[in-house]
Amino acid sequence: MRSFASDNNARVHPKIMEAIVKANEGDVVSYGDDIYTERAVNKFKEIFGEDIDVYFVYNGTGANVLGLGTITRPYNSIICSSWAHINTDECGAPEKNTGCKIISLPSADAKIQVEDIEKHLHALGVEHHSQPKVISITQSTELGTVYTVDEIKKISDFAHRNNMLVHMDGARIANAAASLNKGLREITRDAGVDVLSFGGTKNGMMFGEAVVFFNKELSKDFKFIRKQSMQLHSKMRYISAQFEALLSDNLWFENAKHANEMAKYLESKVREIKGIEITQKVEANAVFAILPRQTIEKLLKKHFFYIWNEETNEVRWMTSFDTTKEDIDSFVSDIHLIS
Amino acid sequence: MRSFASDNNARVHPKIMEAIVKANEGDVVSYGDDIYTERAVNKFKEIFGEDIDVYFVYNGTGANVLGLGTITRPYNSIICSSWAHINTDECGAPEKNTGCKIISLPSADAKIQVEDIEKHLHALGVEHHSQPKVISITQSTELGTVYTVDEIKKISDFAHRNNMLVHMDGARIANAAASLNKGLREITRDAGVDVLSFGGTKNGMMFGEAVVFFNKELSKDFKFIRKQSMQLHSKMRYISAQFEALLSDNLWFENAKHANEMAKYLESKVREIKGIEITQKVEANAVFAILPRQTIEKLLKKHFFYIWNEETNEVRWMTSFDTTKEDIDSFVSDIHLIS
Amino acid sequence: MRSFASDNNARVHPKIMEAIVKANEGDVVSYGDDIYTERAVNKFKEIFGEDIDVYFVYNGTGANVLGLGTITRPYNSIICSSWAHINTDECGAPEKNTGCKIISLPSADAKIQVEDIEKHLHALGVEHHSQPKVISITQSTELGTVYTVDEIKKISDFAHRNNMLVHMDGARIANAAASLNKGLREITRDAGVDVLSFGGTKNGMMFGEAVVFFNKELSKDFKFIRKQSMQLHSKMRYISAQFEALLSDNLWFENAKHANEMAKYLESKVREIKGIEITQKVEANAVFAILPRQTIEKLLKKHFFYIWNEETNEVRWMTSFDTTKEDIDSFVSDIHLIS
Amino acid sequence: MRSFASDNNARVHPKIMEAIVKANEGDVVSYGDDIYTERAVNKFKEIFGEDIDVYFVYNGTGANVLGLGTITRPYNSIICSSWAHINTDECGAPEKNTGCKIISLPSADAKIQVEDIEKHLHALGVEHHSQPKVISITQSTELGTVYTVDEIKKISDFAHRNNMLVHMDGARIANAAASLNKGLREITRDAGVDVLSFGGTKNGMMFGEAVVFFNKELSKDFKFIRKQSMQLHSKMRYISAQFEALLSDNLWFENAKHANEMAKYLESKVREIKGIEITQKVEANAVFAILPRQTIEKLLKKHFFYIWNEETNEVRWMTSFDTTKEDIDSFVSDIHLIS
Repeated sequence: MRSFASDNNARVHPKIMEAIVKANEGDVVSYGDDIYTERAVNKFKEIFGEDIDVYFVYNGTGANVLGLGTITRPYNSIICSSWAHINTDECGAPEKNTGCKIISLPSADAKIQVEDIEKHLHALGVEHHSQPKVISITQSTELGTVYTVDEIKKISDFAHRNNMLVHMDGARIANAAASLNKGLREITRDAGVDVLSFGGTKNGMMFGEAVVFFNKELSKDFKFIRKQSMQLHSKMRYISAQFEALLSDNLWFENAKHANEMAKYLESKVREIKGIEITQKVEANAVFAILPRQTIEKLLKKHFFYIWNEETNEVRWMTSFDTTKEDIDSFVSDIHLIS
Repeated sequence: MRSFASDNNARVHPKIMEAIVKANEGDVVSYGDDIYTERAVNKFKEIFGEDIDVYFVYNGTGANVLGLGTITRPYNSIICSSWAHINTDECGAPEKNTGCKIISLPSADAKIQVEDIEKHLHALGVEHHSQPKVISITQSTELGTVYTVDEIKKISDFAHRNNMLVHMDGARIANAAASLNKGLREITRDAGVDVLSFGGTKNGMMFGEAVVFFNKELSKDFKFIRKQSMQLHSKMRYISAQFEALLSDNLWFENAKHANEMAKYLESKVREIKGIEITQKVEANAVFAILPRQTIEKLLKKHFFYIWNEETNEVRWMTSFDTTKEDIDSFVSDIHLIS
Repeated sequence: MRSFASDNNARVHPKIMEAIVKANEGDVVSYGDDIYTERAVNKFKEIFGEDIDVYFVYNGTGANVLGLGTITRPYNSIICSSWAHINTDECGAPEKNTGCKIISLPSADAKIQVEDIEKHLHALGVEHHSQPKVISITQSTELGTVYTVDEIKKISDFAHRNNMLVHMDGARIANAAASLNKGLREITRDAGVDVLSFGGTKNGMMFGEAVVFFNKELSKDFKFIRKQSMQLHSKMRYISAQFEALLSDNLWFENAKHANEMAKYLESKVREIKGIEITQKVEANAVFAILPRQTIEKLLKKHFFYIWNEETNEVRWMTSFDTTKEDIDSFVSDIHLIS
Repeated sequence: MRSFASDNNARVHPKIMEAIVKANEGDVVSYGDDIYTERAVNKFKEIFGEDIDVYFVYNGTGANVLGLGTITRPYNSIICSSWAHINTDECGAPEKNTGCKIISLPSADAKIQVEDIEKHLHALGVEHHSQPKVISITQSTELGTVYTVDEIKKISDFAHRNNMLVHMDGARIANAAASLNKGLREITRDAGVDVLSFGGTKNGMMFGEAVVFFNKELSKDFKFIRKQSMQLHSKMRYISAQFEALLSDNLWFENAKHANEMAKYLESKVREIKGIEITQKVEANAVFAILPRQTIEKLLKKHFFYIWNEETNEVRWMTSFDTTKEDIDSFVSDIHLIS
């Protein structure tokens, strides 16, 4: 039964599994000093430029926290949307591990605005207050919306003018690229992002995310931070082989594009149903909708997904590389039957 | 080319890879609420008893730090051997993440004695000093030696009499069990261990370790600590399927037994070579030896392994489930040629 | 020149200074095992009941952070007003030192409501989210308002029903008691507060605050946490002698009452001036007002005080035990001259 | 009754108390932006040079931890003697607050040697191991011994050659200067020390220590770290006035010289008693001695002091600026009576 709960309910993409199996031969040096890692790193350099630093970690929370911790000191603050994964879904990992304060800005669509950030900069240099150092944006956002390149640039310019840095939580960066139909570099580095959490798991990998630094000065300490933060894998080849496969033959793009299309298809089908309201623009692989409570409850008996807002009866449905039109037809047909 | 650098240079055991591939079908709920995890947890319960709590994490450092952090508060200290992985090989992860002080005891064979622990308990209750709370022992040790059940019991009894707990770093617990030819429960829970880091990666897995609590009171908080410590995997089925395979058909034991036998075989072959001194008892899957510097340097050109002590020219050679007699014969033959 | 910037710009009250000087005789054991500390602790027990635990620390940030850290684990969250000192004026000390997430609620008068707290409890037990454990309220608040006993009880009842605890930042608890004309116990312990930061410095002391636990189960670890958090004073007698003096002969109350009255007097005088708007109820020792920008700038040349809100031209004026009517008359006269 | 337990059992020196009382007039701006602080800072600059940064904190643990935390990142290690206050007497504050690993070197006299430090530098650049960054030495040491200038220089040169820094725990730096009869700058900055914890409390102050940075590049972040670490005092003038008095008219030197002389006098008297062995050179204000257990126990009934080593019956006796020959005569007479 297809799940619409999260893209991380999906299996590993067959081509990635194949790469894993193929890597399973003989001994190789651990901790990343191997040919698989070299090849995977080169794939990243092809995409983002030679003069980057990229490191593999276990998961998205790890990628975010380590990226943020590397470019801050504990007396700094990190500004993000109130919907940000780092604010709501990491059980306080950023605070505990970086020591920084998270300042979350209310936002209707999970995108943040320079105007709202600005209000938190009045105390720069005053020791009583956490010092804002990083603006963290999620792309695509936790509400399935996507920043345009111009929107990112506006935030980056503002950040850099104020001696701050830009972190992008790119757990679903592929979905954003596919949505914008732009290159990965264009929507990150070229738009002024300094540090990128590059997502793998939600786009067909088994485990593994990457932290990409577009300024090598910032990443000098990273390898020690990764180890001390328990995010250094010993049998690194198995993460690297996955990334190599994901970044080959446009697989990352095809996976994300398909997931996005399935979300659009789901949206179109759901829009036909009376009594259901789509609450966010469907720009990536998520559909947010408000349903009658009864419908939700009946549907949950057959399909697993999350209620996003208990008070408003808003739900989140996500699609993945593995979702098919048939899955959606069947799901929507069940909604029809129930309603 | 076979590596003697570490058991984590080995590939994934074919049966475990097979389990991974088999798990790669359809959608399942993430974060451990799936049938694979249920089955893997049951395997642990079969071995250690129904009334345990077991959680899967990414790696050995994660298992150690989270296990220790769950049963301490930051003003506690953790007593271990000076050779302990938590003391020397985790880049300060225990201190950073638990806030605790590590008190390391000198030891010739990486095993610690009650007499040496006792000296550090004189300030119980005095607020100026970190309060000893955990004795952490590694089994098999970082020097390839193995605690007997009686030795563990002596430490556990002492710990419990003094209101302390026992943590076992079992990154190579399988090798210890095979070495002692005893059951996993007999050398852990029944010997008084409270929390066990159960190793998977070094015994043929791709990634994943387990933290096993033998007292469920101690683990109440663990799931939050795991998430906040960035060690909760989303696609959990892929760790669980590995553990299920490892704990089925005695695979864990056979892998470890074979690795141990290969170390013994390597030892026997090396003992025949003049000018090489074996420095530790070979009780698990490691051989420590002192060689002439020249021999080391020539050998390193062909084979990768670690110099353990630059001053004394001591090296460490490790075997794994995948090491063969032929690998060793060829390695030893190279030593002969060089010497 | 009298400062209206903060009550901590005031000197030490003469009676407290006298107590310090009197304590300066001969040797006494350090770290609190002395007769001065015993007497001061007894003063607290007279006020709050015999079955409390009270500990002295250096400053208000220390009192808040240590009190909060003692009753939480890092995966917890602490809910407070967006104006709370712990949220805005401690440079991220709570996050860094406790590891907890601070959840701040918007509030017009710096008081928080159960309805707003409730919205943050939807994820109790779910490991992805920080677990709310403490509601922290400030009394009197950072905006010079005061919770009624009923308001505190409503929050406490809600907290306890939800397995949470109540922390009160009482840096100005004396001002609140004087404002409500109620006993210290009545507005804290009897209203359901679990842990109290009891302010000394802002009410006439030189240094020193107290952390009062109304449930001794909660404070078992405190002495170790205080030492590890660098808040244990060696020559403790000099904090204790101050507290003994402050809590004798109603000095704490008289100081606070006077400060409050001076704020009221300032308010009444300012209300006579056209073009100045008082923005908060004057219930303790602070007056918040909006002035023409020009007036602020001219006034700042002669008097030191803080601009609270640069955008709205709101300023904060604080009074202390040492403020006199003459000080205020002179200050107000300057405003008149300038306006 | 005079205490020989610690120099922090002494009262505040009358001249320092006088300065405190004198500072108690009118309002002054808080947090250090006042004339008292300016004058105190200037005293430090007169001693150590204009191009320093100096900050006042509450206590010795605070000074050590904040100094160390400012010049490290959590993956660093700090090397010190096993007797170091930061290793044994701060309840793990350095680990908890800096995240760093403490590496303690065995030492008979609490002084450390370059040869022993060197052994811990073999893993520079290897991510599995905490990276040594600071050598911390205590002057005078916890065993009452004193480093010569040449000994400090040797350590500093070694540190700087290896890209490390030197921290000096100078809780009793005045006693060291008096012992060596050298200037404060000569035994710190000019000997290569980078960061100094400058002790006040043990040399006649009520509260307050200073952190002195001899390289202003290192201290850029300090003011934020101080606030976030709960070590920023609001009514700063009362610390500053003390330092100004301590550093005026050679008071710091006279106090320390007297304390040292009293220790020498105590030593000379004790050496006359049969059955007591002095175990450390008496170079500052401490006398370490082994006594018969019975004598210790009887003496403790009348005089308070610490048993340093329960196993060997070694005790520590400390003198202060306030100890008199009569105190010692009376104390020694009691030993005679008891023995």
